[in-house]
Amino acid sequence: MSERTPSGTRDVLPDEMRELRALTDRTRGTFEAAGYGEVYTPALEFERDSNAATGPGAASYRMFDERGNVLVLRSDMTVPIARLVGTRYSATPGPLRFCYVAHSYRSVGSHRGHAREVLQAGVELIGAPAPEGTVEALTVLCDALDAAGLTGYRVGVGDATLYPVLLERLGVAAERRSEILRDLSVGDFVGVESQLSWLGLAPEDAELLISVPRMRGGPELLAGIDPRLADAAGGLRQVYDALPPRVAERVIFDFGLVRNLGYYTGVLFQVYDDAIGEPIGSGGRYDELLAQFGRPEPAVGFALNVELLHTAVAGEERDG
Amino acid sequence: MSERTPSGTRDVLPDEMRELRALTDRTRGTFEAAGYGEVYTPALEFERDSNAATGPGAASYRMFDERGNVLVLRSDMTVPIARLVGTRYSATPGPLRFCYVAHSYRSVGSHRGHAREVLQAGVELIGAPAPEGTVEALTVLCDALDAAGLTGYRVGVGDATLYPVLLERLGVAAERRSEILRDLSVGDFVGVESQLSWLGLAPEDAELLISVPRMRGGPELLAGIDPRLADAAGGLRQVYDALPPRVAERVIFDFGLVRNLGYYTGVLFQVYDDAIGEPIGSGGRYDELLAQFGRPEPAVGFALNVELLHTAVAGEERDG
Repeated sequence: MSERTPSGTRDVLPDEMRELRALTDRTRGTFEAAGYGEVYTPALEFERDSNAATGPGAASYRMFDERGNVLVLRSDMTVPIARLVGTRYSATPGPLRFCYVAHSYRSVGSHRGHAREVLQAGVELIGAPAPEGTVEALTVLCDALDAAGLTGYRVGVGDATLYPVLLERLGVAAERRSEILRDLSVGDFVGVESQLSWLGLAPEDAELLISVPRMRGGPELLAGIDPRLADAAGGLRQVYDALPPRVAERVIFDFGLVRNLGYYTGVLFQVYDDAIGEPIGSGGRYDELLAQFGRPEPAVGFALNVELLHTAVAGEERDG
Repeated sequence: MSERTPSGTRDVLPDEMRELRALTDRTRGTFEAAGYGEVYTPALEFERDSNAATGPGAASYRMFDERGNVLVLRSDMTVPIARLVGTRYSATPGPLRFCYVAHSYRSVGSHRGHAREVLQAGVELIGAPAPEGTVEALTVLCDALDAAGLTGYRVGVGDATLYPVLLERLGVAAERRSEILRDLSVGDFVGVESQLSWLGLAPEDAELLISVPRMRGGPELLAGIDPRLADAAGGLRQVYDALPPRVAERVIFDFGLVRNLGYYTGVLFQVYDDAIGEPIGSGGRYDELLAQFGRPEPAVGFALNVELLHTAVAGEERDG
């Protein structure tokens, strides 16, 4: 039989749809109870807005409108909400709190099983700097996962500046840094080590660069850390110390956490659950994105993949 | 200031979004209470499926996937649900009842104010012939509008075969018929009259063809009708006689009702409200569409434009 739907897309039948609706209702309810107002932005947006935020090529699907403008399908909701804030809330004092439940569109490349159409539920907190804004985002994240009925999850927390700053301090040239970070963002540790071996670093520096992305653990990881990581570690410590205990107990520090989206600037996080082999959601600080839309303000947000969250909740229930 | 979003699209801010959610929750609740299970199909679909149902060119946005397949953005949910039924429910006995709340995508042409992205809530009833299936669809439609809080609406009811059959019986050639129907589908009565004037018809035939599309009224319209309209009028009478009184009192027969979507085969309907200048929703029978997807069965459905419905409800409240 020929494929029913394009690869990376699928039909949702009533039994599953009822569960997905219940899940998004609960998640959205948590967001709204925390003061986040739901917004919707068009699935079709100007390519210029998409590019302004993330550089050319972030969007995978390009079309023309009747006037020759290039339109793209949104690849996430963070950039459209940044544009929305810049155009519709330019005079409204922050912090601003928005949430959404919406589909985004990605290319699936040659990877089987990657989703072309992704249903996301998330929040954006605009005008709330670190550490307070980050603490609030992590708290809303855990409250939403709790409301979804997920019990065994952990939140990996890292910092987007940690590894790039370390590479810079050890004298690695800019173009080598971006190649190493690209390998690291897809979890290719072998590629990272291979690249490092060609740099002629002092053995102890090379060893530090190899070991740091593998460092995972509790808050003890932040004590006794190499002084060249002290800035990022200090920022993580500030967030951790301000977390409510129910959130702090979910946190695992992960120094290998790097996102390949250009706009992240500080603390990053990712949601894991043993019931499923890939992250259920992710987020972080993007303190420079809003300036692209005329409102320079710090911001933080996250997105949950609703279908993976549903699979994880079902998996936990099945595995008991 | 440059446009914020592509023409025919818009941002929805929290106050409105809350009302739209409440409206879709109520509408969906009505559909589910009547036995319709919600489904979701991908926004990106194969062009071949779109074309199989409605002929080339129905979809306005074309893209390629990684393997060279042509993908399009869905232009409605009726065709994808027909495909879904053919692929996922091929062995399930009917009638099948599905509902949806989803966006569809249209080209806006040169018409300002036309929507490129349309949020629709609707149902499809597969395997239920006329008149019973049509009666059920009209009843669910009115129940949903009542649940939405709309009070002053009327449902225009016509038949897709009425005017084409009359043209044929009066000897109008096939290619002229399709041109006349195209004018009629956009309400261009002047164009219809102009085209008819060139056909050399007997004066009484020309007069009949000019007067029929303007015929609107209650069930008295079906009595004493020209015998060449008797088939369609008989079908409308059967539906009308089986409607619950709360539905029958909303009906206005409209012999000018023609849809430019190729798949409609029988009774058609459209929702009007004085608070708004365009139809809030529409539907009808499509008894031949399912055969395109390997399951020849009669079917009927409708879609409400959620944002127009919201505007109409708000307009009625304002006008009191």
